[in-house]
Amino acid sequence: MGLTTAQKDILDKAVEALHTRGFHSQYPEHPAPAIYGETADADGKEAFKALRKKNFEELKQEGATSWIGEEHSPYFDAPVGPKYPAFSTEELINRAEKAFHSWRKVSLDDRAAVLIDALDRFSKRFFENAYATMHTTGQGYMMAFQASGPHAADRALEAVAAGYDELSRFPSKTTWDKPMGKYNLVVNKEWRAVPKGIGLVIGCSTFPTWNSVPGVFADLITGNSVLVKPHPGAILPMAIVVAEIRNALRDAGFDADACQLAVDVPSAPITKELAEHPKVKLVDFTGNSEFGSYLEKLPKAVFTEKTGVNSIILDSVVDIDKVIQNITFSVCLYSGQMCTAPQNFFIPEGGVKTPDGVLSFDEVAQKFADFTNGLIDNPKAGPFVLGAIQNPNTGERAKNAAKELGGKVWLETRTIENPIFATTRTQTPVVIELSSADKDKFATELFGPIALLIKTKNTEESVALARELAEEHGAISCGAYTTDEAMKEHIADQMSLAATPVSFNLTGGLFVNQNAAFSDYHVTGGNPAGNASFTNPGYVNGRFTWVGMRELA
Amino acid sequence: MGLTTAQKDILDKAVEALHTRGFHSQYPEHPAPAIYGETADADGKEAFKALRKKNFEELKQEGATSWIGEEHSPYFDAPVGPKYPAFSTEELINRAEKAFHSWRKVSLDDRAAVLIDALDRFSKRFFENAYATMHTTGQGYMMAFQASGPHAADRALEAVAAGYDELSRFPSKTTWDKPMGKYNLVVNKEWRAVPKGIGLVIGCSTFPTWNSVPGVFADLITGNSVLVKPHPGAILPMAIVVAEIRNALRDAGFDADACQLAVDVPSAPITKELAEHPKVKLVDFTGNSEFGSYLEKLPKAVFTEKTGVNSIILDSVVDIDKVIQNITFSVCLYSGQMCTAPQNFFIPEGGVKTPDGVLSFDEVAQKFADFTNGLIDNPKAGPFVLGAIQNPNTGERAKNAAKELGGKVWLETRTIENPIFATTRTQTPVVIELSSADKDKFATELFGPIALLIKTKNTEESVALARELAEEHGAISCGAYTTDEAMKEHIADQMSLAATPVSFNLTGGLFVNQNAAFSDYHVTGGNPAGNASFTNPGYVNGRFTWVGMRELA
Repeated sequence: MGLTTAQKDILDKAVEALHTRGFHSQYPEHPAPAIYGETADADGKEAFKALRKKNFEELKQEGATSWIGEEHSPYFDAPVGPKYPAFSTEELINRAEKAFHSWRKVSLDDRAAVLIDALDRFSKRFFENAYATMHTTGQGYMMAFQASGPHAADRALEAVAAGYDELSRFPSKTTWDKPMGKYNLVVNKEWRAVPKGIGLVIGCSTFPTWNSVPGVFADLITGNSVLVKPHPGAILPMAIVVAEIRNALRDAGFDADACQLAVDVPSAPITKELAEHPKVKLVDFTGNSEFGSYLEKLPKAVFTEKTGVNSIILDSVVDIDKVIQNITFSVCLYSGQMCTAPQNFFIPEGGVKTPDGVLSFDEVAQKFADFTNGLIDNPKAGPFVLGAIQNPNTGERAKNAAKELGGKVWLETRTIENPIFATTRTQTPVVIELSSADKDKFATELFGPIALLIKTKNTEESVALARELAEEHGAISCGAYTTDEAMKEHIADQMSLAATPVSFNLTGGLFVNQNAAFSDYHVTGGNPAGNASFTNPGYVNGRFTWVGMRELA
Repeated sequence: MGLTTAQKDILDKAVEALHTRGFHSQYPEHPAPAIYGETADADGKEAFKALRKKNFEELKQEGATSWIGEEHSPYFDAPVGPKYPAFSTEELINRAEKAFHSWRKVSLDDRAAVLIDALDRFSKRFFENAYATMHTTGQGYMMAFQASGPHAADRALEAVAAGYDELSRFPSKTTWDKPMGKYNLVVNKEWRAVPKGIGLVIGCSTFPTWNSVPGVFADLITGNSVLVKPHPGAILPMAIVVAEIRNALRDAGFDADACQLAVDVPSAPITKELAEHPKVKLVDFTGNSEFGSYLEKLPKAVFTEKTGVNSIILDSVVDIDKVIQNITFSVCLYSGQMCTAPQNFFIPEGGVKTPDGVLSFDEVAQKFADFTNGLIDNPKAGPFVLGAIQNPNTGERAKNAAKELGGKVWLETRTIENPIFATTRTQTPVVIELSSADKDKFATELFGPIALLIKTKNTEESVALARELAEEHGAISCGAYTTDEAMKEHIADQMSLAATPVSFNLTGGLFVNQNAAFSDYHVTGGNPAGNASFTNPGYVNGRFTWVGMRELA
């Protein structure tokens, strides 16, 4: 088969984008009728409704021992509905092993063709997937469409491109010709990029596809078979992706079991059993640090994105209102349930410098509370930006934060009404003041809508704390506001030592939470927030081994 | 400063060789007067003699707490002599930390220039280094010259080239320009390749430079500082390398403490304390599996070459004498003290097919014993090929093997006389017959001059055993002899799944033990013999982190 001209073009552009790192996107992020068709949204909604009522049979994973699934919508406060086929671990492994031995022999071009075809098939279901994502994660519609659809597909394509790039980077054959004086020693050499075996991709409840598809596609492009184990609370979005990968595999004449869905319910988890199985050679994980650190100790190739403590450093600004508007939006977006959401806002006790003089700590804090409130109470924005709370514990954490942390509360957390689903589980951000002496309080991740305004002696202390937290507890993002070039370099230098990317002086339509495929490395792999990075060479190189064969010519 | 034209040429050719993987060598391996000068060998011998009698002050690591060193020559059975400066761990770390913060800011070109200069300086001491290597490791002169000098320098240059290649592979800056409909979102992005910090390179007693210089140069090219901790039995060769790196650093105006020698004596080892120090972020290790596996569990970037069980598979041959000559040379070379030396020779009970009919197992075994004996007793070759036994335990292991393993002894181990040093510690290979049922006996590495001839049901069983041993216990090399193309592919496929390179049908002047810089990956990283590979992209990528900075344009 090989790549079609169109697929070759998609791949070439993606590989080029990886190296130029400018803006590139293959799958349009705007859910516009002009792009996706007039009825795309309505069709997607109907398709989602249809999926709710039945067994998810389109995977065509035959012989299930039972059909299970306990997803629950934080919007309509009821089961999402679909049931998925369940299998014993041995059955999943046996099928994956069998498929591995044919898939590993498929040419790189054919593998790339199948995977790009799978993404094309997936793109036709972005709207259906958006609703599936909304009602499992609690994301707002726009985020659910973008992050779970086109952005996830772009990150998947990025992984395919990275794998293709690495696998094509060294010759598969050469003649080694060594002058020995009176004669030449001539050796025919061959190298094989040998996949590791069976991969396991473990998903999270808040970003079921965005965080998981890179690992799935990275495993597959490098010739491994893969078991996709979504979080039991957010299966459907990934089930759609797996179904389309299997369709692409099957239609190309390959064993669809190169990619299988493996599901469980909270009362009977299967993740550890799968992860510890000796035939599982690769594990991708997004989730909490404790489980991630356990996985990292397994004797296999493990790629993690765990948790971190993200900081915003406020030093000096051009326009304080634009700054506060930007950072409070970051706090409200999906109610702080993003791994890139900022938690700790370091503000000097002497205040923040502006062109009109210094704004005191209290003035900044008041603005922070006011802008947060303003966004929450904007009926055209608030409910949709905040979305819903995926896990009830997250809401509880925000409710208890003031009591547990102490410190002045600049803004109480509350619930708001969602205009579409009256039963939506909401919790708005709580804004709490702490001091730099309260490190024990702000040094752990408080996942969800919790913003801590931390009074520091000066910006130097802010930077030192942000670096220390990132080094010791991990960080995935950092925002910094300074108009001082020397301070900017100081922050860049210090945070780079903590392997934490910094967004400087963001205002307007770009937020510290956002990482773009082909350009922004997501998680650096260099601090405790995770050991892998979307998508650096190590992300794919760790999935196969170069092995040489040689013989005298 | 930057690279000189000559250095740029050396670097460009090395990077090109990494990607073409044909023959390339920067440092001539032949210790010929025509290349190195008429008096080079004599001068080197004198220089070595001079070093024996004094403190190794040329490192210029000032303020030593004491001068220590207990190297012992297995040739002249006496202390080698030199003493090296000793420091507390804290002092070594403090100096390394200080040097790190200047070295990490040195440009990539300047780092490459310093390192290529260091190799040039080292190359002027290859003969001195050869004698230092002989009298610490027991290697024969030719191996000591080649492996510890030019081959080590080539592998060091390979690491520099790989680092340079990876660090230049992605842009340090770009403009990200995203069309947003009515406007473009334009972001200036910058990426920094941030080194991890302090590296530690732990050497082995048998190949003090060959196995260690890649890690040292990989750490340095990626901007880390490095502590070089040689095996207490083989310090001098590496001390010479470190001295020349420090000279190159100092003469270029940089802090020489970016590379420090850290020494100990067997009674007071410092390796664990260094490896566990929280400021040590990178560890390179060559040595036994137990210590390597302990290191791999440390929460840092660890690159290991541990031990393995290497196999030779005999199926069918064109010329049995040439085959046996080749593989018995591999057994005798440095008395089997190479990590690539073959241990297990799998021979079908039905014999080995030749153009003149089948040669029985016993006939093959007899030839194996005869050719081994022939080489040992050749006064112009035997003593120099066998060299000396580095560690008395290695000799004891060979002496006890027959008793401990049982099985027919086809050739007893013995000592021979070295014509130059009467006191040389020698032990010739013992050749023992086992059967495929004796897996518990041949499944562990029996380091040293021990060859096991294992009778299998057929070649399929030979292959299955070789694969299983490699997967479970590691393997660094594998040799296979077959004239059947289908069997050849079967062996290549099966051993590639065990991440073990295969040399097919070697005869004449190429041996399974040899891995050439720029072409043969040494250790694949894909089986228990080690997690790192000279030199794949992961070998250098793991030493730094890409960290992005961004700001609205």
